[in-house]
Parts: sequence; C-alpha cells; structure tokens
Amino acid sequence: MVGGGEEAFIGAVHRMAARLDDRYELVAGALSSDPARAHASAVRLHIAPDRSYADFRIMAQAEAGRLDVVSIVTPNHVHAPAAMAFLDAGIHVICDKPLTHTMAAAEELAASVARSGCLFGLTHNYTGYPMVRQAREMVAAGALGAIRVVQVEYPQGWLATDLEASGQKQASWRTDPARSGAGGALGDIGTHAFNLAEFVSGLQVETLAADLSSFVAGRRVDDNAHIMLRFAGGAKGMLFASQVAVGCDNALKLRVFGETGSLAWRQEIPETLTFGQLGHAPLVLSRGGPGLGAAAAHATRLPGGHPEGYLEGFAQIYSDFAEQIQARAEGRVADPSCLLVPGIAEGLRGMRFIGAAVRSSQANAGWMGL
Amino acid sequence: MVGGGEEAFIGAVHRMAARLDDRYELVAGALSSDPARAHASAVRLHIAPDRSYADFRIMAQAEAGRLDVVSIVTPNHVHAPAAMAFLDAGIHVICDKPLTHTMAAAEELAASVARSGCLFGLTHNYTGYPMVRQAREMVAAGALGAIRVVQVEYPQGWLATDLEASGQKQASWRTDPARSGAGGALGDIGTHAFNLAEFVSGLQVETLAADLSSFVAGRRVDDNAHIMLRFAGGAKGMLFASQVAVGCDNALKLRVFGETGSLAWRQEIPETLTFGQLGHAPLVLSRGGPGLGAAAAHATRLPGGHPEGYLEGFAQIYSDFAEQIQARAEGRVADPSCLLVPGIAEGLRGMRFIGAAVRSSQANAGWMGL
Amino acid sequence: MVGGGEEAFIGAVHRMAARLDDRYELVAGALSSDPARAHASAVRLHIAPDRSYADFRIMAQAEAGRLDVVSIVTPNHVHAPAAMAFLDAGIHVICDKPLTHTMAAAEELAASVARSGCLFGLTHNYTGYPMVRQAREMVAAGALGAIRVVQVEYPQGWLATDLEASGQKQASWRTDPARSGAGGALGDIGTHAFNLAEFVSGLQVETLAADLSSFVAGRRVDDNAHIMLRFAGGAKGMLFASQVAVGCDNALKLRVFGETGSLAWRQEIPETLTFGQLGHAPLVLSRGGPGLGAAAAHATRLPGGHPEGYLEGFAQIYSDFAEQIQARAEGRVADPSCLLVPGIAEGLRGMRFIGAAVRSSQANAGWMGL
Amino acid sequence: MVGGGEEAFIGAVHRMAARLDDRYELVAGALSSDPARAHASAVRLHIAPDRSYADFRIMAQAEAGRLDVVSIVTPNHVHAPAAMAFLDAGIHVICDKPLTHTMAAAEELAASVARSGCLFGLTHNYTGYPMVRQAREMVAAGALGAIRVVQVEYPQGWLATDLEASGQKQASWRTDPARSGAGGALGDIGTHAFNLAEFVSGLQVETLAADLSSFVAGRRVDDNAHIMLRFAGGAKGMLFASQVAVGCDNALKLRVFGETGSLAWRQEIPETLTFGQLGHAPLVLSRGGPGLGAAAAHATRLPGGHPEGYLEGFAQIYSDFAEQIQARAEGRVADPSCLLVPGIAEGLRGMRFIGAAVRSSQANAGWMGL
Repeated sequence: MVGGGEEAFIGAVHRMAARLDDRYELVAGALSSDPARAHASAVRLHIAPDRSYADFRIMAQAEAGRLDVVSIVTPNHVHAPAAMAFLDAGIHVICDKPLTHTMAAAEELAASVARSGCLFGLTHNYTGYPMVRQAREMVAAGALGAIRVVQVEYPQGWLATDLEASGQKQASWRTDPARSGAGGALGDIGTHAFNLAEFVSGLQVETLAADLSSFVAGRRVDDNAHIMLRFAGGAKGMLFASQVAVGCDNALKLRVFGETGSLAWRQEIPETLTFGQLGHAPLVLSRGGPGLGAAAAHATRLPGGHPEGYLEGFAQIYSDFAEQIQARAEGRVADPSCLLVPGIAEGLRGMRFIGAAVRSSQANAGWMGL
Repeated sequence: MVGGGEEAFIGAVHRMAARLDDRYELVAGALSSDPARAHASAVRLHIAPDRSYADFRIMAQAEAGRLDVVSIVTPNHVHAPAAMAFLDAGIHVICDKPLTHTMAAAEELAASVARSGCLFGLTHNYTGYPMVRQAREMVAAGALGAIRVVQVEYPQGWLATDLEASGQKQASWRTDPARSGAGGALGDIGTHAFNLAEFVSGLQVETLAADLSSFVAGRRVDDNAHIMLRFAGGAKGMLFASQVAVGCDNALKLRVFGETGSLAWRQEIPETLTFGQLGHAPLVLSRGGPGLGAAAAHATRLPGGHPEGYLEGFAQIYSDFAEQIQARAEGRVADPSCLLVPGIAEGLRGMRFIGAAVRSSQANAGWMGL
Repeated sequence: MVGGGEEAFIGAVHRMAARLDDRYELVAGALSSDPARAHASAVRLHIAPDRSYADFRIMAQAEAGRLDVVSIVTPNHVHAPAAMAFLDAGIHVICDKPLTHTMAAAEELAASVARSGCLFGLTHNYTGYPMVRQAREMVAAGALGAIRVVQVEYPQGWLATDLEASGQKQASWRTDPARSGAGGALGDIGTHAFNLAEFVSGLQVETLAADLSSFVAGRRVDDNAHIMLRFAGGAKGMLFASQVAVGCDNALKLRVFGETGSLAWRQEIPETLTFGQLGHAPLVLSRGGPGLGAAAAHATRLPGGHPEGYLEGFAQIYSDFAEQIQARAEGRVADPSCLLVPGIAEGLRGMRFIGAAVRSSQANAGWMGL
Repeated sequence: MVGGGEEAFIGAVHRMAARLDDRYELVAGALSSDPARAHASAVRLHIAPDRSYADFRIMAQAEAGRLDVVSIVTPNHVHAPAAMAFLDAGIHVICDKPLTHTMAAAEELAASVARSGCLFGLTHNYTGYPMVRQAREMVAAGALGAIRVVQVEYPQGWLATDLEASGQKQASWRTDPARSGAGGALGDIGTHAFNLAEFVSGLQVETLAADLSSFVAGRRVDDNAHIMLRFAGGAKGMLFASQVAVGCDNALKLRVFGETGSLAWRQEIPETLTFGQLGHAPLVLSRGGPGLGAAAAHATRLPGGHPEGYLEGFAQIYSDFAEQIQARAEGRVADPSCLLVPGIAEGLRGMRFIGAAVRSSQANAGWMGL
C-alpha cells in the first residue's frame, strides 16, 4: 500500500475492503512520505519493518517479484508517479480515484499501463454495490427501453465552511489544486457521479455544459457543480455535485429513465432499487430478494435484509480484481462477472470529464466535448 | 367558472378547492364553448340554466355586478381573453397557470389587470401547502443563512408515450403549441417548479441556460427540460421538469441550501419538511407539529398526523383570495397572512421563464435573461 | 349537526368532509348545549337562526320532515340519545365513533335503528381511504391467500402528559369515563384500529387478551393498550393503541399477512400500499396508479401523485352515505360501491371490543370473547 | 471455529466479521462432523490440515494452549457441549445464539463458564450496531425520561412455506426441536428481539404472556409469536416475531417510548435513529453525524453517509471481544466501551424467555415469570 498512514480516511477503507473477502494480505507499505510516520503506521498494521518504506520508488524496486499488487491511496497528485513505479516493476495496481491530478499525468499513466501489461483497477467503488450492478444489467438487457434521461447527483455538506483553514487533512489536500487537480467537488465526488451514470446507463457523455462555483470565500477549487449532459445516441442528463450541501452526508443518487421503465438508486440506502414500469406499479427490488440477476448475485454475501453497505461494495472491487490477478497468474480466463472493475479507460474518462467541465465553466457553461 | 366542463381535470379541482373552506358558491359558468356540453355540465353542477353560458364574453357582461369572482380553468390560450373580459366587467379573477400562451398576451393581460383595479390570483397551488409556507418563512427569517443552491425538479411520466395521438383531452391541448404556448412540460409543470423555487427562496432568477427535448417522436413541444439557473445575488440552481419520466407521478421536489441550513420538501409527501442544520442532526418538521411558525399555522386545518394534501393546499389559495376579496368589499385591510397568493407579477415571471428557456435552448443552452 | 361548536375538532372535520363532494348542505344544528355558544356557532356556519337549537331533542322534532340526515359529533355519551331522537323523527343519522359510551346504550341504539328503518352510518373514516378499500378488495379476492396474521397499531403521543388537568377540551372528555365510556385510548383510537383490522381482513375477532395501562398519574381511563387477537378461522393478531407514544402523531398502521402475500398501509402516508408477494419483489401500489381495482377507483378524486388525505377519506364516507340516502329517496338500489360505510353492526362490534378488552385486562389479560 | 462448513450461513458471517477489524486469524477448525466435509472446508479457508478436525472435543484438547478463542457456529444443540469442551481447555468462547437448545444445557454451560474463568461472548449481533448503542446510551442517560412502553418486532417471511420439506439445511435444523430447541421463530429471532429490547431499554422483562402459532402445516415448532411483556418497574411491551411474514426479509424494529422522548430503530436501515421529543420536532440521528455520544463513536468505522451494515455490527462484537481477550492476556483492564458484548447472563435470559413463552402459550397465554 502506498499512502494510507495515520489520519488518512481512504487508506483504512481500502484495507478493510481488501480484508473482507480474505483474498489479500497486507505485507508491505510506503504509508507516508514521512519516515517516522510511515514506520509507526506500519507497526500498527503488522507490516514487517523491512518491508516498510518511506519512498514508494524504493518500495517498488525492492518489492518487485515479491508483491502481487499494490494499492495507491495517496492524494491525487501522487497517483501517477506511484502507479508508474509499480507498473514498471511488473506489479499490478489498484488506484484510488480520480485517476490523477492532471490530464497529462493521466495519459502518461495510461501509456505506462499499456506498456506494462499489468492489470490496473480504479476504485470507483460505487460500481461494486450489488444493486448498482443489477441496474446496469437491467439497462443492458433492455428492461427500460432506450434511455432518454439520466439524473445523477452527489451532494455532501462537509465543506460548507472553510474547513481547510483549520488544517483538517482531508479538506486541505482536496482544496489544493496542486494536490487535487483542477476539480474540487468535481474531482472528488463529481467523477464518482459521472462514472456511475456511464456505468449503469451504458452510455457515454459526448458533451457537457458546466456551471462551477466556489461558494466558500477563499476556496481555490469548485465546491459546487451544476452540469448538463448530452450522451451519445441522444439521451440527456444532469449532474449535481456539491460539498456545500448542508444536511447531506454522502447522498449519491442515480435515476435512469427509459422509454418503458426507470430505475432509482440511493447510495445511503443502497440495498434497494426502485423499478418504475410503464403501465405497471413500481417494483422495489432488494439485494438478496426475488427478481435479481446474476450480476447482483455475484456481488452478494448475505441474505436479504442483512444490510451490506459501503465496505462490502468496496470489497467487491477488491475481490473481483483479485480474481483477475489470480486468473492471470494461473493462465486462465477470469470469471466474466469479475470484469466490471473500472480501470484505466474509466480513469481517463473521469479526467476528460473534469477537464471538459472546467473548460465549460470557464466558457460560461458553453458545451464542451469530452 | 370558465372552462371546467366534462373530461376536464383542473376544473373539478378548482371547484373542490373553492368549496372546502366554505367561502365560495358556484352560481354561474361558461363551462364549455360547446353549448350542449356547457349546459349539461351546468346542470350537473347545480348552476341555474339562466346563468349557464357557452361564451365567456356574454357571461362576463351578463354577470357584471352579480358575480364577485370568476375562475378561469381553460387551456392556456383562453386565459387572457377570458380574464380580460371579466376584469373589464369589474369581476375579480382567479386564473389557472401558466398565465397565458404567449408573452404578448401576458403583457396585455397584465395591463388589463392594472387598468381594472381588480384582484387577480394565479393558482400556483403548491404555494398553498403549509410546509411550503413554513419553508418560505424560515428562509426569510434567515434560518438557512444566505442561500447558495436551489434544486428543484418536477418529473412526471404520463406523457412518456404519444398519448396525444389517442385524442386524450389533457394530452392534446397540452402538446399543441397553439393552445399551450411555446412550452410543453416547461409551461405545464416547469412554471410550477420555477414559481416554487422563487417563492420559497425569496430570490429571483436572473439568467438561465436550458436544454429542452422532445423525446416522444412527433411531439411538437418539449417534454423534458434541463435548466441551470443563476439567481440575483449569486445563488445558483438547477431545474428538471419532465413528462417522460416513467415511474414518476407528480414528483415535485424542492431543496434549498444555505450557508448554515437546508430545507427539503416533496409534494407527494407534503406534510413534512426536512431541516438540515450545520453541525446538528436534521429535524423533521411536520404540519401541525412543534416548531412551526405562523405561516404554516395559517394554512392548517387539521391536527398533525391527519394528512392534508393537494386539495387542501389548493383550497388555501382560494381561501386566502376570498379574504382579499372580502376585505376589499368591506373596505378594510386584508389579513397579511392571506397575501401570499401568486398574482399577475408571478404570472409574468412564469412567462418570462418560459420565453427565456425556449430562447436559450434554441441558442444551444446559451444564458438568457428573464 | 349535533355538537361541533367552537373548540370542537371533529365537527369541523365532518363539515369539510360533507362539503367536499357537494352532496350536503348544512341547514340546521344543535351545535352546543349552551344556547349562546350554539347560536354563535350557527351564525358563523350560515345556519338560519330559526334552525339553530340548543337542544337536540327539540331540533329533531322541529326538523322532522325537513332534514334528510343529521351528523352527531358530540362526546360519546351523547351519541345514543341524540341519534335515537333523530331516528325517531325518521331522519337518517351519521354518527361519530365509538358508537356510544356503554354497551347498554349501544344496544338500545341498535334497536332504535332497526325500529326506525332509517340509515345509520358510523364514521370509521379510515375505511374511506382508497388504498384501504384497495386492500380490502385484494384480501377478499384472495391475493394474499388465507390470512394468518394481522398486525395493527395506532400510536399517538398527545396525552403523554396530564393534558386533561389543563382543561383542554379534547383531553377532558376523552379521559372522563362518564363521557367517553370505559375505554380511553381503547375507545378513542383502539376502536378505529380494531375496525380497520376487521374491515380489511374480512375476518372477525373471536377472542382477545388485553393489557391496558394508565401511564399518566391520575388518569381515569387507559392511555395504552396491548392486545392479542384471535380471529375466527385461525388467524391471529396484535393491536397496539397508545396516546402516550411520544413522537407519534396519528400513526395508524395496518399489516395483513397471508399465505402468499402481505399488505402494509400507513395512515400518515396513505397514498401507497405495499404488496409483498411470495417469491416476487414487493409492489408499491399507489392511488391513481396502475394495478388498482374498482373499489379504490370509486374513492379517488385526483390523479396519482396529487395527495388525497384525511379529509378526502372522510368525505368518502359522507359521499357514499349520500348515495345511499338518495337511492332510498328515489326508490332505487344504491350503487354497490357505496355500501362500505360502517354502520350499526360495526358500531356494536366496536363496543364489544371495548368491553372485552376492559374485562380481559381486569382479568389479568385472560381471553375474552367479543 | 466449530461448525461453519459448506452450506452454513452464519459461519461465513462470523468469519467475515472476525476478519473486518483485523484482530483475528482463523487457524483451526472442526467445521463439520463429517470428516470429508470438514477437511474440504478447511482447505478452502486456508486452515492447515493438521489443525482441521472432525470432532470438536479432539480439537479442544489438541488446541489447548495454542488457541486464544473459539467460535461456535453450529446448530443450537451443539452449542453447550462444544463450548464446554473449549472452556475446559481454557479457551475463550464466542458462541452463536440462542445459548443452547434446552434450559438444562444452558445452566450446565453457565456453570462451566463460571468454573473455567474464561471469557464467553454471545453473538446477539444487533447490539453491535452503532445506533443501537447510541439508543442504549440515550435511554441510560435519561433522554427519554422513565420508560413506559417497548415495542419490538422481528418479522421474516422465508419460512412461509414448508421449506424444511425440501431439505434446505437452514430450514431443516431450525424446525427440528431436537436441534433447535423448543422455540422455532421464538428461539431463532425472538431471542434477538428480546435481547435488543432489554439491551436498549436497560429494563428486564419480569413476566410475559405468549400466543405461539405454527401456521405451516406439519411444522413442529412455532413460526409466529405474539407476546405481551411486563418489565420490572412498570413498563410494558409487545414482541412480535414471525417467520411466515411474507414480504419481510429481516425486519427487526425497536421502539422505546418514555415520558419525554422516544426512539425508533430499524435493522434494515440501521444507520439512523429517530428521536421523538415531547414538544419538539423529531431529530433524525445518523451514524457519523452530529449529536451522537461515545458509544456510537466507538462502534463507527466510516464517516456518515457511507453505510455500515450487518457485518460491521457483527464485527463490533468480535472486535470488542478481542479487546477483552487481549486485556486479559496483558493483565490490564479492558476499555470499558468494549464491555457491551452479550455473554452468559444474556444467554440465560434468552433461554428463560424461550421457556416462559413456551409455557405461557401452553397455558393459553397465561402470564409466566422469566
């Protein structure tokens, strides 16, 4: 693991997710660029001292041939150099989103992935939820007819005040363009919303018109994004991402409307999916319940009514990626149900989304292609 | 009443709303332009034959001095001529929304209202809900701090197919630009959403960027509207109105986010209002419950837990307008809590909203002023 | 109308309910036993002075032949004498629930109804909700298979403190056994829950075991009832009624479980009905939406998504009763869909329910027959 | 681990729960009494062949001194002998609920626990949910005033048909009195409901009156339980547990009503807790959100809005028990926040609950002491 030392939120999440299905063992880490902190974190995580590093490049070289896969859980600007170091060492990579802090870095990383022949997974973790996979499967199977409208939103409220001024670690790097990239809320959560919309609808956004705002005085990145979307094939959408939405925690929500049906899913109550049907009463599909397909079943651990949540969805990404690694190692074809893990292509689309939205907003919400 | 004969939906609603609080008596009508149908409807509604008309102009002349107020519940293109006929006769007018089918007609009507000295009420009925009034009062009192973001949506699904081709009356005139005006979903329900956003936030939209669609083949007006809003003072918003949102009935929803608080209200479950608070757990305010102000109390008939709904909210508009009429008749100042009924100004803003949205969409979602 | 003067809650409800569908005109009243108060209330309600009375017996005699129907909306102990006075005068009666304050009075009233040949309606108003009628129709049609379990609850919180000590009118008579009868929460709301359970399930409670409590010190009637039910045919149930359930407004809820399906309905969100299906995902049926039968359609005024509530359900009782009266007057058979209005039989069952529960509780929750 | 081989549901849950917080390593097991099956399961779980056993007694002897703690996840009738074997070997025990299949076995086990000096944890896992702990803490702090009413229910629908006839493993042993004990739904889920009610309210049930049913023809244990409760100190309650509640998955729900406040919690949406307040609007408390106390914070891994669910709640039991074991090993006092794990006392109360309910039902719902 690279990053994920003390005070880090997402590092601990990755570790729990990796652990849940018992397919990973944490054996080495460059948990912090501060050697003392890296060492202290390693001790706490039962990493042997000689496999604890303060520099990810040294770690990559030292661990080449010993490590199956590395998790990159640093701030955004470190993703590309860290990932490339491990790819060069022939080590598969799981990387947090968004892919990188700049488009240039993203493309360099994409080239590196291609060159390495290694597997690259991007933790757009919301794609791991069973009911999200169910939704995708239903759309693909035509259960909604042709898609017309996609509404996605991701409101949070934790940056409604100038939290970065307090030095709070999560707020600080996320509002620093040098570490986070050009997108604030856009990059941190807007990319999740964008990815989810494309993942479930099976459609690609062609152009967008964005109105980005920084409501908190002095903030250097956007904290609120209003975006209109046009998909290839004629569907349209709206995307709302905000970190100043007081009263919202992590309220990612997706609705897809087709000619004959619709689906609605809310991340905070992730176990159900409402299926609106032209001329029929809506069905409430639930994880583990009747009427679900293979994609949801694959991502399910517990019977219905025993809530699975964020970590389980995140773990699905890790488990599916493990199967890919193992299949590669064993020279066999991976179970097709494990191939939904977002990768470098989705990472590049996320970067293009950020770039187009920033450019559009600078052009007074003119339409920009991705 | 003008309009509201057989097969009409909104006419019956107006009558029930007027009746609920016992301040109106239906005594005359031009319920249809077809004399036979007008007469048949009048009989059923206990209107004396000699006060049943097939022509609203004749009715206005004949009823001058006998009638306190008329309700106009026709398709949009008849609003202006009908209203003007009664205003000219010195009769107060309650008119269904949107104000008219064209901006020119709207301005002519506005001039007529001003000239007449009569009262003019516009049934943006959602402003009559107690919890909507509560929301407005809280925003005005600063309970949310300065407003940053307004999210409003109004999805319906009933026009997801080519219903107008079947001759269904409601669908036919609403999708006919000659009778409905330039806006389809935009005019029919988008104006409600727009009005609600301005009513609660107390802010005015300055400019908007709209992407209108007609998803159903052959449809002559929009059936889906994606709009970004910019309010005077810096707040921003999004408005989604659709009549092709399969699975949605009448799902008007408003969220207002301020610096220190937020409010969320859903028309389909109108008795509660969620109050998000910076640094505190959200409160669920409910009609008739603790913590409400005078505006909600004014619009409340029943104790909490005894659901009031659409008709009661609609009736509030009628009751408040009755108080205005009565105060005028008695030469006294009306109870201030009865002055929230939308009127000609709100009607004009709705027409400007439609106009700006249509122009913006024609200009590929360029920003247009209202 | 008898009762329903100032400060009365339910009288105003009856008047609005009667008015909504335009089938009643309020022309006479004994609105209070206090002449001054009766007169003042009559003036406000546009009742002619010569048809305003302070004594219901005088009113019954004076109005015989002039009045179609009377509403009795007094405290419970006045129901029987008032109803009998009007029945003796050949006037149909709509009476608030519970039927009377004692079993003896109930039986006397039942005999009076039988003797009079008049129609008698009892406002167990929750049976007027469209989705309640839908539920009843589905159970009767076998959509749930044989019924096994009925769970009904009716928690309120408004009597969590010693409100009667303040002299509040609603609390005072409801907690006075001389006016309310032996049941407190049991009679006021328990009878509604009981009635709803029998109405929807189509089953009759044979025996019950009740544990009644008076949690508020000094209270003379129960304010909390826990009851186990056994239905004829083998189904079982539980009934919870409370007026000390802090945080609850009027949270009547019914669930019926059969061999192959279940239904759940909540009065506070009355527009939907959840239909659980063995081996299939649950359907959310909604008023005005697809999949409903004739019974719900009959009780529906507005399209789906335009919430109807408490008054509309109450109005349904009034409208259906009006149809019965009119059919009787016209010598024809009433529309069968109007025959669901609870009457004297349901009133007697409610009284037997109260009696059995009080006896059971006195016998330490021994089983008692109804 | 004892039990938990193939087809077992709860064994896998225990393993995931144990793994989540990285405080357990699975090193030995008697996963099945069938040697071949035990071995196959051990291989899949990375247990060394020489630490895989087919007989828990042999395992206990062989692992004495090598194993810190064992998990017992067998059908109920094996709990006591297995646990006692390990306690005799000085190994701490985590045991699934209910404690045993008979009261005699329970008392024997309790004596064994006392004799051994070992730690004994019982996985009434719902006590591990953060919002359940929050509820308990609020009740204990007097936030609700004196408790009056406790309503708890646990409806499931999976045994609505004669599933045991199909040979389905979960259904078979649960409906076999020899393996499950005298309670069917009562033992399997009723004990959870009972435990939760006592855990949160801080009160003990003194007497109960139960009406148990076996709705499915031929079923040898109850599948539906209606129970009235009386708590020491005067509070009263109702408990509904069912496995024939079609349409319900795992719908455990608890409500506690006090003099000045109430709490409501639903297992299927476990992240929120509704706090009703006398004279104030209800608060919606949520995990990770404002207004929570230390008990919830202790049991929280993720920020608010990132749903934790069943496994996380279960893991809390495991983590807290690990802290107890470690503190014991290190000769220090355990963190007090880790002492809420249910143990032998709660197990005995659960058995007394089953016994009293069965006796009560046999006595036609007469009151029985626990």
